[in-house]
Amino acid sequence: MSDAAHRGLFLAFEGGEGAGKSTQVRLLTEELAGRGRAVRATFEPGDTPAGTVVRQLLLDRADLALSPRAEALLYAADRAQHVDAVLRPALAAGEVVVTDRYVDSSLAYQGAGRAIPREEVAALSRWATGGLVPDLTVLLDLPPVTGLARARGRAAADRMEAESLEFHERVRATFRELAAAEPHRYLVLDATLPADDLAAAIRARVAALLDPALPR
Amino acid sequence: MSDAAHRGLFLAFEGGEGAGKSTQVRLLTEELAGRGRAVRATFEPGDTPAGTVVRQLLLDRADLALSPRAEALLYAADRAQHVDAVLRPALAAGEVVVTDRYVDSSLAYQGAGRAIPREEVAALSRWATGGLVPDLTVLLDLPPVTGLARARGRAAADRMEAESLEFHERVRATFRELAAAEPHRYLVLDATLPADDLAAAIRARVAALLDPALPR
Repeated sequence: MSDAAHRGLFLAFEGGEGAGKSTQVRLLTEELAGRGRAVRATFEPGDTPAGTVVRQLLLDRADLALSPRAEALLYAADRAQHVDAVLRPALAAGEVVVTDRYVDSSLAYQGAGRAIPREEVAALSRWATGGLVPDLTVLLDLPPVTGLARARGRAAADRMEAESLEFHERVRATFRELAAAEPHRYLVLDATLPADDLAAAIRARVAALLDPALPR
Repeated sequence: MSDAAHRGLFLAFEGGEGAGKSTQVRLLTEELAGRGRAVRATFEPGDTPAGTVVRQLLLDRADLALSPRAEALLYAADRAQHVDAVLRPALAAGEVVVTDRYVDSSLAYQGAGRAIPREEVAALSRWATGGLVPDLTVLLDLPPVTGLARARGRAAADRMEAESLEFHERVRATFRELAAAEPHRYLVLDATLPADDLAAAIRARVAALLDPALPR
């Protein structure tokens, strides 16, 4: 485990808009719960009472004209509260925690997409999380044209979805670079595959983490 | 000037609860405006549309149980937006900008009073502000027992005012240490003096900064 202090298992799902993260988080947590595991699905930004307010500022209020630094700090504040109030207590209690987005999303969206150097966003996230790193990050990789078409068919575009295609190409490239730099800690999947195939691949990898002694 | 890029004058007022900051900010800006200077009074946290929401999270919502890091990051986010949307544009336009609280308040309240090392809060503020430092910081120094009695006579206690006396003693000590470390950039005043005497001392120091060639 990347964080010696916790006894649970910390899983993050990352990827662009429309990659199917929430579907896969749901399928995995249902499967684990069905096998009697203590499991919790969570997300960023916004999965705490304070985070709900911060999420509204970040995603629904284009009128606020947030500066890039202010935006990065709000994401970091949401993340710090998520780590301290939700993730660490659940992991300390031995739960499997599955988050829809975590640090990589900040690196991809603020770092690669915006005006702030990625290393500065990384330093901010390291401080916000106190160094809590997922045991496994599942990257659902998808061409932005495909993902955005899916996402736009679903709901009104939020601020991130309204960015240019070039922006989303940079986001995808950053996700892939992060995964390539730590291959043992990532599972990169082609998110154009059927949801059931993706779920099976994720299930297998997570089972290996939960019961490393079993044959894979 | 501490920031070679700006043409205005950047003044910060710092001090504990009930020290009289808002009164002195008002007296100074009225005086400068009366002499035809372009002057702007502002404050932290909360003097932007996004900051108004963040301020509510920080000061009015004890139910949120913000972690120390989340709180520090929210203050930093408010500060970044304040610097980018208000302070830098006004200074670039040559205005005198007078803020009620700035970086020192974070160092004093989060750094000295809470569980976070002061140097980490300082690093966060340096990043949030892009290194924008006041040309002069006026510290209105007051024993906490006096200041809290004043503040409590005025309104319901917010989260900061509800802290222990020992907390506020540490806050005061930090303000004084910061001033002692950079005496040329601070004006430390005994805030138990009459408001008019304080205003006269502040006026004289600011006049010297605005017209350094004049006899003082």
